[in-house]
Amino acid sequence: MDTSKDVVIGIDIGGTFTKIGVADRSGTLYYENSIKTDLYEDPNSFVDAIHELVVEFSSSNKGVFSLKGVGIGAPNGNYYTGHIEFAPNLVWRGVIPFAQIFNSKLNLPVALTNDANAAAIGEMVFGAAQHMKNFLMITLGTGLGSGLVVNGGLVYGHDGFAGELGHVCAVENGRLCGCGKRGCLETYVSATGIKRTVFELLASETHPSVFRSIAFKDLEASQIYDAAEKGDPIAIKAFKITGKMLGKTLADTVAHISPQAIFLFGGLALSGKWIFDPAKKAMEENLLEIFKGKIKILPSALLNKNIAVLGAAALIWNELDSK
Amino acid sequence: MDTSKDVVIGIDIGGTFTKIGVADRSGTLYYENSIKTDLYEDPNSFVDAIHELVVEFSSSNKGVFSLKGVGIGAPNGNYYTGHIEFAPNLVWRGVIPFAQIFNSKLNLPVALTNDANAAAIGEMVFGAAQHMKNFLMITLGTGLGSGLVVNGGLVYGHDGFAGELGHVCAVENGRLCGCGKRGCLETYVSATGIKRTVFELLASETHPSVFRSIAFKDLEASQIYDAAEKGDPIAIKAFKITGKMLGKTLADTVAHISPQAIFLFGGLALSGKWIFDPAKKAMEENLLEIFKGKIKILPSALLNKNIAVLGAAALIWNELDSK
Repeated sequence: MDTSKDVVIGIDIGGTFTKIGVADRSGTLYYENSIKTDLYEDPNSFVDAIHELVVEFSSSNKGVFSLKGVGIGAPNGNYYTGHIEFAPNLVWRGVIPFAQIFNSKLNLPVALTNDANAAAIGEMVFGAAQHMKNFLMITLGTGLGSGLVVNGGLVYGHDGFAGELGHVCAVENGRLCGCGKRGCLETYVSATGIKRTVFELLASETHPSVFRSIAFKDLEASQIYDAAEKGDPIAIKAFKITGKMLGKTLADTVAHISPQAIFLFGGLALSGKWIFDPAKKAMEENLLEIFKGKIKILPSALLNKNIAVLGAAALIWNELDSK
Repeated sequence: MDTSKDVVIGIDIGGTFTKIGVADRSGTLYYENSIKTDLYEDPNSFVDAIHELVVEFSSSNKGVFSLKGVGIGAPNGNYYTGHIEFAPNLVWRGVIPFAQIFNSKLNLPVALTNDANAAAIGEMVFGAAQHMKNFLMITLGTGLGSGLVVNGGLVYGHDGFAGELGHVCAVENGRLCGCGKRGCLETYVSATGIKRTVFELLASETHPSVFRSIAFKDLEASQIYDAAEKGDPIAIKAFKITGKMLGKTLADTVAHISPQAIFLFGGLALSGKWIFDPAKKAMEENLLEIFKGKIKILPSALLNKNIAVLGAAALIWNELDSK
């Protein structure tokens, strides 16, 4: 009788580090490791390095675990094709058929999607969205990612690229975005966005602030939270502006998909009331009457866990279960 | 052997008229009629009047047709509950359990949704979206309605009220909307919206225009099309502004759901290039690189048909088929 425990591999590919974990159906992680993504100029040697870790794990846990599949979350990961396509923050250029490479090396079912979609699935399978059929996940990092769940399924859209809320227009002719457009939501609501707001306020206001002695390139978003907690007026105002912008835009997203809840994940989501209070207030003020008081904005239940690896694991569990 | 043809009843409830039709699986209509909605202060007597028409139809077509169900499209119709809820343009106040009333009177399966969702299903079942899994329907009437289709299914959201694109914010602190908010898309993009734009232009510009002799309450949106065709500079500019506003907002919707196509239906959609050209241009200009050149904006294939009745019929066919 096979008494080994069914587990899957979750892989979170980031610009600098790639994290790998082994998780069971309930989200318990039995193994965690990471490698430096940008050491590997050839995607095949990158996959070889991961393969080695997997072989190591398997041979030292013979009979204990049974590997069932591989889930991958990656920037610009396309669920339909299994490709990573033109990811500006990765070392590999163009279109890389990662799902296929992993599949041929590891001989296991592989599913791949972008990091925000993986986070949404993580919340659905292991987090606070376990009984929700319609919700939204917003990941606040350097940029703003999003995963939409409708009728119990991820929204991939016609081409696999749905859920780019970081690039809806928040301010007409506003800040220049990395994508080339102006006024995109993530230029205001993200670690980079709130930092830009701090510097705008240093110019427009005359309040004393700890930030008057810090250069733009030296400022970390976490310092803005610390300063707000200490009563720094620029930091407090920057959070108000950021939360308001987020809430206002979320009201438009509610008009699209009417979710039960909106989850926030990432650095800024750790800022508690500073971001949640103005976001909730602005969303309510901008909602149609029929939606008012219905939609929760909540911190992800996986806020202090490795949601990216768990999300990737959840993705492949989902696939295996739907087979 | 029963040789009768399976058909369903499609009902489009409007503020003034209610249209009723009998359609087969391919969308052929065998019967069409209408009654005056606002004659019936009691919803029960309204349903009785429809019941009478159905009985009449059935008895004069004995053995020819077999009625399988009833689909209803109505303003503020909620698919989940089968209720019409607080519809400002209907004579009935509050929450009316229409699906239940129809079901008990006609003894047939009943499905109900709002008019724009019905139009989307109509396009999916009988129109140009027959092989599409992800698309958007925009209905341009007095207001702007929308139906979103994702992964092959209508997006109803958590509460049944998803798809209120008429009320996303198109202009910060813009025009006052009937919903109480300011700057809603439908205050710019709808029959009423383009009329408001004409009057704004009469104030801001000095061009001669046929509209300088027409009072606000006398202007019909169709006259703006006629004037544009004749070269009226105010009419031409009004279409440019309307199309641009629509296209810009559609770019944000694309970032949400990445549809294969966007269909326009209703009076304004009959204005051809005047609305489609600026809408396409503005959408493309505001799309993220990955979406550019991929998404079609098309007139509904049912533009000259009774999409509302056909959509309602398609809704119930869909339900019957998924059983």
